[in-house]
Amino acid sequence: MGPGPSNVAPSVLAAQAAPLVGHLDPAFVKMMEEIKGMLRQVFLTRNEMTFPVSGTGSAGMEFCFVNLIEPGDEVVIGVNGVFGTRMADLAERCGARVVKVEAPWGRIIEPEAVAVAIERGRPKLVAVVHAETSTGAWTPIEDIAKLAHAAGALFVLDTVTSLGGCPVRVDDWQVDAVYSGTQKCLSCPPGLAPVSLGPRALEKARQRKSKVQSWYLDVNLLASYWGQERVYHHTAPISMNYALHEALRLVLAEGLETRWRRHQENHLALKTGLAALGLELVVPERERLWQLNAVSVPEGVEEAAVRRRLLDEHRIEIGAGLGPLKGKIWRVGLMGETCQPANVQRFLTALSACLQT
Amino acid sequence: MGPGPSNVAPSVLAAQAAPLVGHLDPAFVKMMEEIKGMLRQVFLTRNEMTFPVSGTGSAGMEFCFVNLIEPGDEVVIGVNGVFGTRMADLAERCGARVVKVEAPWGRIIEPEAVAVAIERGRPKLVAVVHAETSTGAWTPIEDIAKLAHAAGALFVLDTVTSLGGCPVRVDDWQVDAVYSGTQKCLSCPPGLAPVSLGPRALEKARQRKSKVQSWYLDVNLLASYWGQERVYHHTAPISMNYALHEALRLVLAEGLETRWRRHQENHLALKTGLAALGLELVVPERERLWQLNAVSVPEGVEEAAVRRRLLDEHRIEIGAGLGPLKGKIWRVGLMGETCQPANVQRFLTALSACLQT
Repeated sequence: MGPGPSNVAPSVLAAQAAPLVGHLDPAFVKMMEEIKGMLRQVFLTRNEMTFPVSGTGSAGMEFCFVNLIEPGDEVVIGVNGVFGTRMADLAERCGARVVKVEAPWGRIIEPEAVAVAIERGRPKLVAVVHAETSTGAWTPIEDIAKLAHAAGALFVLDTVTSLGGCPVRVDDWQVDAVYSGTQKCLSCPPGLAPVSLGPRALEKARQRKSKVQSWYLDVNLLASYWGQERVYHHTAPISMNYALHEALRLVLAEGLETRWRRHQENHLALKTGLAALGLELVVPERERLWQLNAVSVPEGVEEAAVRRRLLDEHRIEIGAGLGPLKGKIWRVGLMGETCQPANVQRFLTALSACLQT
Repeated sequence: MGPGPSNVAPSVLAAQAAPLVGHLDPAFVKMMEEIKGMLRQVFLTRNEMTFPVSGTGSAGMEFCFVNLIEPGDEVVIGVNGVFGTRMADLAERCGARVVKVEAPWGRIIEPEAVAVAIERGRPKLVAVVHAETSTGAWTPIEDIAKLAHAAGALFVLDTVTSLGGCPVRVDDWQVDAVYSGTQKCLSCPPGLAPVSLGPRALEKARQRKSKVQSWYLDVNLLASYWGQERVYHHTAPISMNYALHEALRLVLAEGLETRWRRHQENHLALKTGLAALGLELVVPERERLWQLNAVSVPEGVEEAAVRRRLLDEHRIEIGAGLGPLKGKIWRVGLMGETCQPANVQRFLTALSACLQT
């Protein structure tokens, strides 16, 4: 019940243990197509260029940035936690001139602040984290995407923790580039980064003056591997793709709306239980994620000791705070398979026991 | 029996299907230490900075290059197949001025040719592919490493296909940076890239004037994640590391010398059988790998049709030629678990059947 990896369904683990075939075997190529199709359904997009990058969520971030940023480009980045900070660092490594739109950790990025930065900077790209895993803040996207497009900029969205746990509508919101991870609300082991690029983003990647600085993540090369030509690029992680195939099947079998509602309901149950224990959530109610709950550590309670007891005595993992929230919060994940009423109840009982003695 | 992924032992698949723990869980941290220790034994090195990069073999190549090359650096690269070509492309993306030492596909890189290039260029780095997966050529390393060091350059070695299948002696040969993949002679599913950096390489990475262009692969950040501090960087692919742990255990239980000998013996059996069928290997005898055998397609035989029949009728996958060898060779892998007398025999029988009708 930490910030990920979440629990994984037995059928996903079983899929992962199937014998290997070659990555250019017709059976695997068929599976690649099915994964692309299911990812499109989960991202709610028709983007052809939708596939899992062969690395973890952060490799998905790097994939978007190295392909879409050229040296000297101005970019605007929302920074309200660890992952916005990481985006700014990464954009600088791509040679961007970075304008940060900062918000306190635990709060969302406001469209008005993005508008001011866009006005000042004339950026080529605007990037925001949808669900800040480090704080539990849930930034609304539609207005920010519109501002980016009105200024002629590409809009990039981090959905590592949101995808599968709350609404992500890539086409409706006109997100140009999006990345996620497998180990949060998709409940698949970590190791792949689902990504999707829209037509404007692909155009930018194809028209670059400079070569993409990464060979491993160059979409112009990956397009031929994941596209119809199947030109050898790298060797896709076969077993991880078996697992993702089954995890996506489970997500779609449940249905996106049902799955989102499940995350909402368990979050509300957790919130109620925490309140009964006299505990508060860090993020204001209207800005709060369902799948990642940052709980304020009460005065006089030793943060790390409680986490350790939860793990040792109750076999429950939760996460620590990072950056300015280190030592001040617990991060309780209700992601994918982990997001069950029984887990909420078990956690509340265990936490109560740890706080009383 | 293609160029990888190789077959995977049942216990490795079973390890991969174990339930997930968090990537900062004490149990996983202990496993990370054990993986590092076993990788040191397999690489025959005492390098502290030895761990699996969270990507496939090509991410290992990119890891070495982005950390060790600064814009404007002169580098010398041996090019005798797909992977030398890839190294040259990647080095250019890092801003290097690349001097290629070219050899025909199917032949090795000669120390004399490297000496000439070093003389001309005064490189900061020299890189060579130990076992060229695209051709089956096996380049001896010791003399080239000495030439690099005599010129004050770092020596980088690609051991993607060699590690676990033939001698790789990182410390004896004074290799400064080495990378490999899991899906060849280690017989683990693809998805991780074992790497090792020696003290000179680490010093170069720490003293860089420019930031490493990749965030995901920056060794200065990864050192704190895989080192004693365990500072959160990315989320390591948990299941893949379970698999690698078990695969390395099997390699060391067999013993490196025994494992190398097994690869040699099965190669010799294959060679004898191919000769009986009137088929020839592309690479001259003294330059030939054991684990990857490039077979010349005889006059009048349709290369792809034979491969397709092997797969459809005999359930045996072999690889096609790439680049200038496309359509001219079959690539027969005898890697790790796949490298068994029964497989050699089964393949020879099947190939014979496909050639006769």
